[in-house]
Amino acid sequence: MDQRVRDHIAESFAAQSMMATLGAELSRIEKGQVEITAPILPGSRQQQGFGHAGLTFAIGDSAAGYSALSVLSTGCDVLTAEMKINLLAPAKGDVLRATGRVIKPGRRLIVVSAEVHALEAGHETLIALLQGTMVPLGA
Amino acid sequence: MDQRVRDHIAESFAAQSMMATLGAELSRIEKGQVEITAPILPGSRQQQGFGHAGLTFAIGDSAAGYSALSVLSTGCDVLTAEMKINLLAPAKGDVLRATGRVIKPGRRLIVVSAEVHALEAGHETLIALLQGTMVPLGA
Amino acid sequence: MDQRVRDHIAESFAAQSMMATLGAELSRIEKGQVEITAPILPGSRQQQGFGHAGLTFAIGDSAAGYSALSVLSTGCDVLTAEMKINLLAPAKGDVLRATGRVIKPGRRLIVVSAEVHALEAGHETLIALLQGTMVPLGA
Amino acid sequence: MDQRVRDHIAESFAAQSMMATLGAELSRIEKGQVEITAPILPGSRQQQGFGHAGLTFAIGDSAAGYSALSVLSTGCDVLTAEMKINLLAPAKGDVLRATGRVIKPGRRLIVVSAEVHALEAGHETLIALLQGTMVPLGA
Repeated sequence: MDQRVRDHIAESFAAQSMMATLGAELSRIEKGQVEITAPILPGSRQQQGFGHAGLTFAIGDSAAGYSALSVLSTGCDVLTAEMKINLLAPAKGDVLRATGRVIKPGRRLIVVSAEVHALEAGHETLIALLQGTMVPLGA
Repeated sequence: MDQRVRDHIAESFAAQSMMATLGAELSRIEKGQVEITAPILPGSRQQQGFGHAGLTFAIGDSAAGYSALSVLSTGCDVLTAEMKINLLAPAKGDVLRATGRVIKPGRRLIVVSAEVHALEAGHETLIALLQGTMVPLGA
Repeated sequence: MDQRVRDHIAESFAAQSMMATLGAELSRIEKGQVEITAPILPGSRQQQGFGHAGLTFAIGDSAAGYSALSVLSTGCDVLTAEMKINLLAPAKGDVLRATGRVIKPGRRLIVVSAEVHALEAGHETLIALLQGTMVPLGA
Repeated sequence: MDQRVRDHIAESFAAQSMMATLGAELSRIEKGQVEITAPILPGSRQQQGFGHAGLTFAIGDSAAGYSALSVLSTGCDVLTAEMKINLLAPAKGDVLRATGRVIKPGRRLIVVSAEVHALEAGHETLIALLQGTMVPLGA
């Protein structure tokens, strides 16, 4: 994979202040697949003390978006047109890991998905599944 | 509307640390309709400086969830089973306002929607539409 | 509303053999809003004898698509990129009526919604809500 | 896999008149995975002559629903609560094949997905991806 694309993704990620607020990190970049990891910070919780759906969505959507960016050339950007999330289990644990994937690249639209797992004491649970559409913005 | 339900929603909202992190406030509670308002904080942005989709989703999903809670009795809670968001315009402005509504109440599932508007200098723009399903958790 | 756009929609509808199979009719065309009506035919049912979700989806998606086409010029076509349907009640009755609406027009994407009602003995019930994205195809 | 569950699925499928109208057949039943195959009949087309999105949805949704039924006991039924479909390519070819899978079983909700492929002259193309929620109805 082209190092410039990798750098482009890392720079875009660093420019998303929300990712810093959530303590999220880019943990893996491959062509068509990007992984984002985030702790469940004290400030990222819902009313029962689990990770907030907004955290799960934010890293799932971003991982999916960067998987789309990973198949484009470096001058491009992507916007989320729409995203559907099914929440499968509470976001309970130490860390959440979102893995975004390109399902179908395209000039006008890129269909993506993401899985989010909660990691706790060496155990991982699938907590959310996302499916959506990214719009590539030209160089 | 029963003041106890109103208090129950306010307490649940206060227990969501993510809402404080995002600077969000409960701005209106009616039976079947709840409004949440949040500034686009410096720490809530995406790579182009607009509000992050995670912010839009977090307040839209929460407003929708509390609209569901507003039609239940005080001992209940709700969980998001799934949520679909269509992003219509960049989250550009001073403040976002999410308005959640109950579409179809039910014992097992409550279908909800939410609109998110961006407010800027007295002007408001519809930036997102959410449609999803809440699961009521019994008293 | 331009009669040529109206004719264009009627011709496109007539070319969809699935609509004839389902007994569906274009019952109203306005700029940004199109209505399709279909009986629950003996051949359009699910295992309990109600209308099949495929019928509800087919007319809801088509009504939404034609609402998008109604805001475009006559040489255009549209394709569904994605559609989410929440089923609220069984498709029980004599006739289903789908009302599609444009939520946000755009050059690249048109966000649409549709409601489907079941009509029975003068009574109507909202049975489904759709939210999705149409891609306009140029003249 | 229990033969009674298999028979239960086959009977339910046979009771769905819409499946006969579309020429659809149950082509494989395994625990947690069900396949439905349908030709693109002359009466199942959209305005450009490809298979209608209603066809793709109907078999995808049914395959997903039966995958859910395959993990339940024989007295149960399932209803689709909601389904999201992303259409990836035109339904072009001789036959469509929908493969439904259980993502997360549950007592109250079963999260499912489906892929739909178009088959043409020994070649297969992924044309749609569905993700949704089934509600199990007790024995």
